[in-house]
Amino acid sequence: MIEKFQHIIKEEVEKYSAQLPLHPSELYNPIRYVLSLGGKKIRPLLTLLACDLFNGNNEEAIPAAIAIELFHNFTLVHDDIMDNAPLRRSKPTVHSKWNSSIAILSGDVMLVKTYELLTKASQKSHIVLDTFNEMAIKVCEGQQFDMNYEKANHISVLHYFKMIEYKTAVLIAASLKIGALIAGASNEDAANIYEFGKYTGIAFQLQDDLLDIYGNEEKFGKQQGGDIISNKKTFLLLKAIELSSLNAYKKEELAQWLSFVPVSEKDIKQKVEGVKNIYDFANVKKITENEINICHQKALVAFHKISASKEKKDMLINFTSSLLKRDV
Amino acid sequence: MIEKFQHIIKEEVEKYSAQLPLHPSELYNPIRYVLSLGGKKIRPLLTLLACDLFNGNNEEAIPAAIAIELFHNFTLVHDDIMDNAPLRRSKPTVHSKWNSSIAILSGDVMLVKTYELLTKASQKSHIVLDTFNEMAIKVCEGQQFDMNYEKANHISVLHYFKMIEYKTAVLIAASLKIGALIAGASNEDAANIYEFGKYTGIAFQLQDDLLDIYGNEEKFGKQQGGDIISNKKTFLLLKAIELSSLNAYKKEELAQWLSFVPVSEKDIKQKVEGVKNIYDFANVKKITENEINICHQKALVAFHKISASKEKKDMLINFTSSLLKRDV
Repeated sequence: MIEKFQHIIKEEVEKYSAQLPLHPSELYNPIRYVLSLGGKKIRPLLTLLACDLFNGNNEEAIPAAIAIELFHNFTLVHDDIMDNAPLRRSKPTVHSKWNSSIAILSGDVMLVKTYELLTKASQKSHIVLDTFNEMAIKVCEGQQFDMNYEKANHISVLHYFKMIEYKTAVLIAASLKIGALIAGASNEDAANIYEFGKYTGIAFQLQDDLLDIYGNEEKFGKQQGGDIISNKKTFLLLKAIELSSLNAYKKEELAQWLSFVPVSEKDIKQKVEGVKNIYDFANVKKITENEINICHQKALVAFHKISASKEKKDMLINFTSSLLKRDV
Repeated sequence: MIEKFQHIIKEEVEKYSAQLPLHPSELYNPIRYVLSLGGKKIRPLLTLLACDLFNGNNEEAIPAAIAIELFHNFTLVHDDIMDNAPLRRSKPTVHSKWNSSIAILSGDVMLVKTYELLTKASQKSHIVLDTFNEMAIKVCEGQQFDMNYEKANHISVLHYFKMIEYKTAVLIAASLKIGALIAGASNEDAANIYEFGKYTGIAFQLQDDLLDIYGNEEKFGKQQGGDIISNKKTFLLLKAIELSSLNAYKKEELAQWLSFVPVSEKDIKQKVEGVKNIYDFANVKKITENEINICHQKALVAFHKISASKEKKDMLINFTSSLLKRDV
């Protein structure tokens, strides 16, 4: 079933791309480009799975699923300008392939087109739009928090949680809830699947933070320790800074590594190893795994309250759990 | 009535600004800022007037009117980044007062908030959204055409008309149509008021082009000839270039003025005078006035087909005509 839905999404995204206008090409080529870059397209899949969970008509959920993928890509295009990122999914970002003006404007069109799809989405477009709007505002706020925190000297783990909830988790949550709403799920079920998605999304992000340093590079495809090299404020780093188990000496050592700007390959290796040693000393890996587990449990509590067939619930939970079981 | 509606809009925009969240301030302060900059707020006024024309409940049209003003300001914030404009309404633009990232992201939130207002707008939000989406896509396409044409060697008057229709006129048209739809106007009346707005909007833009050089500077508040100084592709310039009445000698003179980059005040005066002489020689002022008149007539043809009380129709037409009667 998962494969079938994945196939449907792939086909529908291609169909959507193909029917976009040709002119002005500066506006629509970037949209076709980002949609063709691949990516796992997990969010629209969750919309279809949630619709199916409540015995909805999957056909009816397809425009909303495409809308969610389009919105996700809109955020990537605009975030990449703000973050000055040259690459996305190993390919040039829109603003570096074209320019910032084109990236701003084609992003804007993607957002309008998202709403066009949602408006046409279903008879229930009104409640779908309410859920979507609330989520989209949080996603923008989350990006602003992220930019603020990047400049801040230190932020608390609590602030970090709010940031990843807004920037990442609510889109996962809304992807599921919108599928449920289209299927005609009860308010309670819709609220529970949203909670499930929210905690699952937070767990994903923590997992991402963990994989950066404890992941299998070959399998995960990222340079190990990229977050450490760039001093990224991940859960691991913020937790290590906050931990009272870290004595003054280790705290000072961590601060020194943070102010060390690696130049050579050797420097990089040293910094990654140095910070990792402190993480190991403070047991940060275990603490992060515990936190992921807590989020997972919270997600499950909400999930268990959902009224749906056991078979379909198992399929959804197996899928989301498999996403969390990437190699650590 | 006009004053009453203007007062309502002023109050409602202020109320809307006041209830925006305080945090993250980097996201919401720019929105409060642009909404406080003034501007004539003609578009939301047209929405209320159109709603009133078809005996709608003005209260019901207010969220859509605010949405339209918010959308208009969103386009200004993003366009100003793309155009690298330091000032808007004589005040620093968002990206120059804060930075580009904040201007991109607060613009994005404005667009989402526009949809939030439209979704809550009325029982008719579905048809309102369809009209809005179609318009918003054209506005983005219009901005792209504008950016393309700025770089192009020459564009035809025909292309110019399409650009101003998309970038400027369809928002005027949709502001009216949305007011009409909320009032429950017939499809025919809604289509006619859209046509009326479209041609009125094109006439406004042509008028703007004309006023740049033939306007009364003190009254109009702009430096005379700003478009000439910056070689802006206005209707007047494109028409002068296309005119067969312009002999080869004059064409060459115009081309020379276009390649002349003024440095001193004296240079500026010379360039403005030089181009204006060619415009006068080619009768471009009269030709533009004729074109405005043609648009005005097309607007009136659509307007006369509208079924509504004479009194209310007179009020609307007097208002839009007064906007066209700025000093030339």
